[in-house]
Amino acid sequence: MIRAGIIGGSGYTGGELLRLLLAHPQVEVAQVTSRSHLGEYVYQVHPNLRKQTQLKFIDPEQVTPVDVLFLALPHGQAQHKIDHYASLAERIVDLSADFRLRSPEAYRRWYGSEHAAPAWLGRFVYGLPELHRVELRSARYVSGVGCNATASNLALLPLVQAGLLDESAQVVIEIKVGSSESGAEGNPGSHHPERSGVIRTFSAFGHRHTAEVIQEMGLHNVLLTMTSVDLVRGALATVHATLKPGVALKDLWKAYRAAASENPFLRVVREQRGIYRVPEPKILAGSNYADLGFDLDEASRHVVSICAIDNLMKGASGSAVQCMNLMLGLDETLGLEFPGLHPI
Amino acid sequence: MIRAGIIGGSGYTGGELLRLLLAHPQVEVAQVTSRSHLGEYVYQVHPNLRKQTQLKFIDPEQVTPVDVLFLALPHGQAQHKIDHYASLAERIVDLSADFRLRSPEAYRRWYGSEHAAPAWLGRFVYGLPELHRVELRSARYVSGVGCNATASNLALLPLVQAGLLDESAQVVIEIKVGSSESGAEGNPGSHHPERSGVIRTFSAFGHRHTAEVIQEMGLHNVLLTMTSVDLVRGALATVHATLKPGVALKDLWKAYRAAASENPFLRVVREQRGIYRVPEPKILAGSNYADLGFDLDEASRHVVSICAIDNLMKGASGSAVQCMNLMLGLDETLGLEFPGLHPI
Amino acid sequence: MIRAGIIGGSGYTGGELLRLLLAHPQVEVAQVTSRSHLGEYVYQVHPNLRKQTQLKFIDPEQVTPVDVLFLALPHGQAQHKIDHYASLAERIVDLSADFRLRSPEAYRRWYGSEHAAPAWLGRFVYGLPELHRVELRSARYVSGVGCNATASNLALLPLVQAGLLDESAQVVIEIKVGSSESGAEGNPGSHHPERSGVIRTFSAFGHRHTAEVIQEMGLHNVLLTMTSVDLVRGALATVHATLKPGVALKDLWKAYRAAASENPFLRVVREQRGIYRVPEPKILAGSNYADLGFDLDEASRHVVSICAIDNLMKGASGSAVQCMNLMLGLDETLGLEFPGLHPI
Amino acid sequence: MIRAGIIGGSGYTGGELLRLLLAHPQVEVAQVTSRSHLGEYVYQVHPNLRKQTQLKFIDPEQVTPVDVLFLALPHGQAQHKIDHYASLAERIVDLSADFRLRSPEAYRRWYGSEHAAPAWLGRFVYGLPELHRVELRSARYVSGVGCNATASNLALLPLVQAGLLDESAQVVIEIKVGSSESGAEGNPGSHHPERSGVIRTFSAFGHRHTAEVIQEMGLHNVLLTMTSVDLVRGALATVHATLKPGVALKDLWKAYRAAASENPFLRVVREQRGIYRVPEPKILAGSNYADLGFDLDEASRHVVSICAIDNLMKGASGSAVQCMNLMLGLDETLGLEFPGLHPI
Repeated sequence: MIRAGIIGGSGYTGGELLRLLLAHPQVEVAQVTSRSHLGEYVYQVHPNLRKQTQLKFIDPEQVTPVDVLFLALPHGQAQHKIDHYASLAERIVDLSADFRLRSPEAYRRWYGSEHAAPAWLGRFVYGLPELHRVELRSARYVSGVGCNATASNLALLPLVQAGLLDESAQVVIEIKVGSSESGAEGNPGSHHPERSGVIRTFSAFGHRHTAEVIQEMGLHNVLLTMTSVDLVRGALATVHATLKPGVALKDLWKAYRAAASENPFLRVVREQRGIYRVPEPKILAGSNYADLGFDLDEASRHVVSICAIDNLMKGASGSAVQCMNLMLGLDETLGLEFPGLHPI
Repeated sequence: MIRAGIIGGSGYTGGELLRLLLAHPQVEVAQVTSRSHLGEYVYQVHPNLRKQTQLKFIDPEQVTPVDVLFLALPHGQAQHKIDHYASLAERIVDLSADFRLRSPEAYRRWYGSEHAAPAWLGRFVYGLPELHRVELRSARYVSGVGCNATASNLALLPLVQAGLLDESAQVVIEIKVGSSESGAEGNPGSHHPERSGVIRTFSAFGHRHTAEVIQEMGLHNVLLTMTSVDLVRGALATVHATLKPGVALKDLWKAYRAAASENPFLRVVREQRGIYRVPEPKILAGSNYADLGFDLDEASRHVVSICAIDNLMKGASGSAVQCMNLMLGLDETLGLEFPGLHPI
Repeated sequence: MIRAGIIGGSGYTGGELLRLLLAHPQVEVAQVTSRSHLGEYVYQVHPNLRKQTQLKFIDPEQVTPVDVLFLALPHGQAQHKIDHYASLAERIVDLSADFRLRSPEAYRRWYGSEHAAPAWLGRFVYGLPELHRVELRSARYVSGVGCNATASNLALLPLVQAGLLDESAQVVIEIKVGSSESGAEGNPGSHHPERSGVIRTFSAFGHRHTAEVIQEMGLHNVLLTMTSVDLVRGALATVHATLKPGVALKDLWKAYRAAASENPFLRVVREQRGIYRVPEPKILAGSNYADLGFDLDEASRHVVSICAIDNLMKGASGSAVQCMNLMLGLDETLGLEFPGLHPI
Repeated sequence: MIRAGIIGGSGYTGGELLRLLLAHPQVEVAQVTSRSHLGEYVYQVHPNLRKQTQLKFIDPEQVTPVDVLFLALPHGQAQHKIDHYASLAERIVDLSADFRLRSPEAYRRWYGSEHAAPAWLGRFVYGLPELHRVELRSARYVSGVGCNATASNLALLPLVQAGLLDESAQVVIEIKVGSSESGAEGNPGSHHPERSGVIRTFSAFGHRHTAEVIQEMGLHNVLLTMTSVDLVRGALATVHATLKPGVALKDLWKAYRAAASENPFLRVVREQRGIYRVPEPKILAGSNYADLGFDLDEASRHVVSICAIDNLMKGASGSAVQCMNLMLGLDETLGLEFPGLHPI
């Protein structure tokens, strides 16, 4: 059995990691930390884990060496202790934003401060298996992924990999997200009477996840617009882009089918009847699938590409476990079999 | 025009008072206070009031005399300054729990501390017009009402006024409430990912509003059980009680129709077809109506009596304005005409 | 008093018309029809109207002449009987899509069939007061507005009226809508377990309301993408467009403030603090306001313009009543004073 | 591998059975039927199963013998063909209400018609393992369970098994349910604009599941009151009952802990801190757990006992699979390991 540790286990991504790793057939969760819930049973914070484990949260200082260490801290913390963490485990998956960008300049531009451990940026592999499967198999340090970046990148992946995009044209990505995206800590805007029923375009431009789309897709003219809606788990990216001249619907079918065929967690959803004709995040709660859809206005070469994910799974902890599987030479899908619920 | 002031205008009941009084044909809102939002436009806190008023929140110390003063402070504050407030206005409506109970002993028992101004308890009239219309017409000091107490009292009113209840039997009142009931300040349990979709029986016994049901209905064997559900505005009380022998369905019809006929904001909802056959709070958002329904199991003499309200209107600010109208000799329904929305 | 009639009063726009007209100080609702609810009290279908009216639904054949006739029928019906309706009232407001487009060709293209009364198309004024206030004052026949078209047109209005748009660039409008938009008749996709919590991009291209944006804004390169979210009332349009070179943020402020100043139901929402910094439809339920916001990426000249409305009010029945007021020489805002609720 | 068939696989319980059996390590789903979706892939109806199976719905007439047959038909159908079904499989689990009651008289009383196969009633075991584990191990025919009956029976189980109830006193059970309870077919009241945000007490008395509580708990003075709230999956039963004199809180602790210790899917939730102090159905979506809580008013001997379940799992398909496991001599929890999600 592989011994895993989790630094920062009381947040939503930490809780989701716990759920996945406790059920993983090849992993034993050795330690999980939380300063604010020190000494509590993990099921007191994550009530779904009651009767699943008797683990308690320990202090981060008490962590002893493990085979793989997951860092699920708030952004900006892991970079200050990465040497220490690297002394505790041969393999690290950091779910925060600290090691997602390859260049210190990009980090400074999007996060507004100097990176505290710029030498480490080059040692990390960006943790999206659909983009870096081969490197991940031999990686020791893997970054997490931004959930909105992941929905965007996976919506773009079939178009970019098949070379169908007119890359000179602007790409506008409209992202709709649920309330779990902002984490387990409340704020005035997340108070239920204020957050319930919202359609709140909280960021028209400049969302930090834009940097991950630029880096991973090699696109430069990209805008992300973020809108909160009434849902707990889930994100939907609707990409508006322009195709090269001459690209037809059948070319899109081919590109999307190839993506779904090469990646166990990608699916194409484009039905002519029934209720579920397009990708929808609601049925993905708890699942690691990313559902892809598309439509084309041939006259204007305007393509709409859609990706639905569970932001806590494919957009965070699910991809992290998938990366761990790859690093450890295990079946990529191990422990990630839950298909989601219908209805929900 | 009557000049009104509001002490504590940034909470939900304060905001609802503002909405009602700004549109009231006989009232001018002279002053509204908020320490935490001092100097802000009221529409920055209550966004529905944008373009309705240019009022700003002032410091409570700056309040000058008005004709009627509404106190919408957190529980426990008004009792410490009631003499001061009484020097500012001839008429006061206090929406907090401070002056709802007539006896200092009851206050101590249910609120766990000594009342700071016990001599004032007897000067206040309990602010539910359906129970105290005549006294309210000559009152100077009026208390607010607990929202759950109001749903309970109005569900019981037809049965009690017609003398149909077996008062020796226990009365169980199951109340389901929306998230606005706990006020504008968030807490960990009101964070949207945790509060969304709940069915959370947060209080099996001992809710403080029980005291108002005991006092106003003259019943002693009463239990309130509180359950939070996914809704912002609204409360539904389902009363389980026992009727005296021989009471038939037609006696219930007569009692409920009498209540609705005598009270402009009571309605009986008991339809045999359509979607809305029973009282439901959702269609009452913004309205001062209380909808009543009932059903009878003749064999066991078990009656179910139901009352739906908007907790911020009939359960708080709507009743407060209705009391003000009565105190001032105005038409009881003035400024309370909004009927609610369908669909919503 | 003006005597009004409503043809088709059991749907959502019909119900909202009833709510508005029953409370309108200058109007008496003389007749309201429904074939499917013939003989029922209107409050059995629209439960918010209980104790507001004793009107019953009558057969459309029984309608007698009135001063103003509102047609709230499903799309495609009014055009077949418009001569008959015109014989019943000097003034008509048709809320369906039948008379919104000025040209039979545009109607054929977007609705897929020949218009049954093409000669009437030129007699109708498009019923958005913010665009046609002067013509509406002397109009006899007024069309309704598409709710998504209205959110789009009002988001574009400040930019177009101030001449700030680069009209050669594509305009992408992402619209998020609540469930009341599809009307009172259910369908498999509107069943609560399937519709709850959705983020469902049901139309990437080709929504019929696009035709109203093209016609009213004089833009040709416009795409509407429609996404359903979990809300009952409300629509938010997020317009992505390109500005002419040199347009700065202060020019936008000026354009939006001018629009809000000239139109009683337009408001600008662009706050730096608080929860409600941008337009949100949830607080507009029942209100006729349209809230406008904007943001600019100067480097790319990309502007995001946002409009939030209640689709049943400003997007349908509220604008219809506003048009009626204008046609009758009344104050434009009469009967439309309800400001909406907070929280909700 | 055990070969399983499902008659009626397009409804919600059928879909949940499919999800569970497709992932079950000892079962192969051989056939699944649907008349209305004949020939469609099951993932077109249950979108969570896309990429999980290529099964298509077949006609019920085409079913060939299997090891275990699940009947997930609408109520009233299985009893007419039970002999035929028995010829197809040695073991049957019927999820409908047809074989839950042991006596034809009870069936007639609660369902209003004669049972079509009364001789079969005695051959079925009531399918709740917590009540009939031993009989289920040797059963060939197992009934489903009513979801509301299950929440009620499990809330009562610790009290009844420990002999703590005063059985002469009335038991009132207030049940709050989500929208999936009424099945996959919509109705006017399930249309999202009408169903969203409801607190709708649709049945004060006489719900058919009452019969299962009476039969299984041996109680006679029991009332079920049903209220719909805004949630898709989940049911919460709040039992109001009276204890025998002298029963103290520690006796309740002992009784509930015993129940949880003897039954792998029962848990006691009674915390003094944190957000999740009491049983809540939302975190049980997809899980087979039943969470139990309790509170006691010693003065009145009034006990409140609470049970939360996922109505489609412990209240239907989860219990059915658990019964199958017992019948087949497998580990009772096999295929039912999913613990639920947090947040959700």
